[in-house]
Amino acid sequence: MAIMILGGDGFCGWPTTLHLSRQGHDLIIVDNFSRRDIDNELEISSLTPIKSLGERIRAWRDLTGKEIRSWHFDVAKNYDQLLTLICDEKPHCIVHFAEQRAAPYSMKSSRHKRYTVSNNINATNNLLAAIVESGIDAHVVHLGTMGVYGYDAAGLKIPEGYLPVRMAGLDGSVVEREVLFPADPGSIYHLTKTQDQLLFAFYNKNDNIRVTDLHQGIVWGTQTRETALDNRLINRFDYDGDYGTVLNRFLMQAAIGYPLTVHGKGGQTRAFINIQDTVRCIELAVNNPPQKGERVRIFNQMTEVFRVIDLARMIAEMMDVPIAQIPNMRKEREENALVVENAGLLTLGLNPITLEKGLLEEIASVARKFAHNCDRTKIPCVSRW
Amino acid sequence: MAIMILGGDGFCGWPTTLHLSRQGHDLIIVDNFSRRDIDNELEISSLTPIKSLGERIRAWRDLTGKEIRSWHFDVAKNYDQLLTLICDEKPHCIVHFAEQRAAPYSMKSSRHKRYTVSNNINATNNLLAAIVESGIDAHVVHLGTMGVYGYDAAGLKIPEGYLPVRMAGLDGSVVEREVLFPADPGSIYHLTKTQDQLLFAFYNKNDNIRVTDLHQGIVWGTQTRETALDNRLINRFDYDGDYGTVLNRFLMQAAIGYPLTVHGKGGQTRAFINIQDTVRCIELAVNNPPQKGERVRIFNQMTEVFRVIDLARMIAEMMDVPIAQIPNMRKEREENALVVENAGLLTLGLNPITLEKGLLEEIASVARKFAHNCDRTKIPCVSRW
Repeated sequence: MAIMILGGDGFCGWPTTLHLSRQGHDLIIVDNFSRRDIDNELEISSLTPIKSLGERIRAWRDLTGKEIRSWHFDVAKNYDQLLTLICDEKPHCIVHFAEQRAAPYSMKSSRHKRYTVSNNINATNNLLAAIVESGIDAHVVHLGTMGVYGYDAAGLKIPEGYLPVRMAGLDGSVVEREVLFPADPGSIYHLTKTQDQLLFAFYNKNDNIRVTDLHQGIVWGTQTRETALDNRLINRFDYDGDYGTVLNRFLMQAAIGYPLTVHGKGGQTRAFINIQDTVRCIELAVNNPPQKGERVRIFNQMTEVFRVIDLARMIAEMMDVPIAQIPNMRKEREENALVVENAGLLTLGLNPITLEKGLLEEIASVARKFAHNCDRTKIPCVSRW
Repeated sequence: MAIMILGGDGFCGWPTTLHLSRQGHDLIIVDNFSRRDIDNELEISSLTPIKSLGERIRAWRDLTGKEIRSWHFDVAKNYDQLLTLICDEKPHCIVHFAEQRAAPYSMKSSRHKRYTVSNNINATNNLLAAIVESGIDAHVVHLGTMGVYGYDAAGLKIPEGYLPVRMAGLDGSVVEREVLFPADPGSIYHLTKTQDQLLFAFYNKNDNIRVTDLHQGIVWGTQTRETALDNRLINRFDYDGDYGTVLNRFLMQAAIGYPLTVHGKGGQTRAFINIQDTVRCIELAVNNPPQKGERVRIFNQMTEVFRVIDLARMIAEMMDVPIAQIPNMRKEREENALVVENAGLLTLGLNPITLEKGLLEEIASVARKFAHNCDRTKIPCVSRW
């Protein structure tokens, strides 16, 4: 089928594109290279030496004979171009990664807050408005975040989007409803994903747009089966204080003998998923669209739950590095429980890669191999809120 | 106290400005005249002959000796100007009306959807980010809408923002929480107000911004004590299919002998408030700010509930005009129950103007008086969703 990937040059977008291309689908990337531009702004770069999108696409064609087409424009700003492309290509599915995705970056300054809100909300609204205007019945697969639920739900199991609740009715009776799990975002970035949920719910109700929203945990790992095929296909690896995710940062730190940076007590419990499972989950979502008229389908795209301090201890022991507990610079609980329902994607066939099995491979193939590229000055988190 | 009114030239903003100026506060209007520009776009104009903001302000000074200052810029686009003004003026309170406020306008086309989302969300986010960046402890009073709750809550009394719910806990226990009432917007306009709620909740939690969100019913009436003082102060009266609210449209239609346009069965039950009560509610909100650290304070700013068909019958009988039941062009229930809690503002001292008492006065002083200005071609609703 024809599949458009908005943000197809990014950390999740690029391996997703290759994975779906390999399945025989017709892939079209839209990307404005904002992530590469932000590398320039922050004076950082991927630990792994990523190639330009053009070179990546040529390498994929050389290796597989498969053609990926790409367009360079801003989905949040170039509505007319997006609409024209959707009308021309009539995609069956549009995977939407075209959002600023780092919480610390979104909190750096007013300008970063404003960019994140405007970019993310306008990108999502433009996509939905364009689908309605085009009249095409494209299935939207969106990358949400587990952060929409927040980390203050002690005593509850986080459901897949919808929470059954009981309320006092007018006549003294008990009213039962399923409601969208109450949003509790911890950063401007996470906030935009809670606002996205309201956009999806509205366009789904009003225009019957079919949407799957994938609330993803923290991604770890770098390569997928496809990106590992050739050096020119290599995926990005972020280790800096803004874009690096906690586990990849630990691996990098361990590889260069830098004490593992744990903020506060490290009792923050988070959900995780390997990048190889990310692309597999998106494949499952693409292949299992909601029915017309079905409400927004929400899956929790995560496979394991860990406390940050436990991850640090695991890696510290494995690689014989110390742990540095430093002050927490975020407004967040330093300890929380987290119990998550994730039956949806497992039922569709996901067979998770566990941290225990995948971690050593990741260290050897990426963190150690490219350690010489690391700029140690970019490791500390400086964004504070 | 120093009070900034964002959108202070509009239908609610202008009478609010005068009302608060009369109380002795120092008023500063910010407005980009978008509502007047939309009049040009739609080739409509207020039934009442409104003057330019400059002339309005001069008239107020002539009459009362009170100075209102005004700035002409777009809050959603000119962040730096907004920040500078907040830093310079250090307002105690900022009343935020600077949003596109018509549901039918927001649904006219993709362009209108996109304008409404981008304008409203960026205006609110710019305001909140500017307050944080300024370091000033300004109280934000925002005009929300009863439409955030939707009209599908049969069996429940609509609370003032927060709904107590019970859920099944992990260990089989019952967990009780108060959650933001689940959003159920009926148009893109209403959607943006549900997204605003998430912005307020986030900045309140993260930055301790003090916010009062007023979920207003449908406003009827035109003049307030202050706008009625002089012809140059007259408030706008919209009767067109986009910006005219249902009751004012009925009054106008009755005044010119046009059959009262009821869409569908007219069983839609809505909440109403008179414009004179609007300005009084805002005064009450301004004078009773939340404590630092208090969650977003939400009031339902409405005084009466009516079914549309009952309003039509009341006016039809009073003024001897027929009712025209025409197809409903919106996706909405044609009949709904609506029971609303509104104790908050009543407790603070609101003494409502009832429809029964205020309606005849409104007809005589505005609808009949300016009936000759009516363009009958602008009465039908053409926005369909």
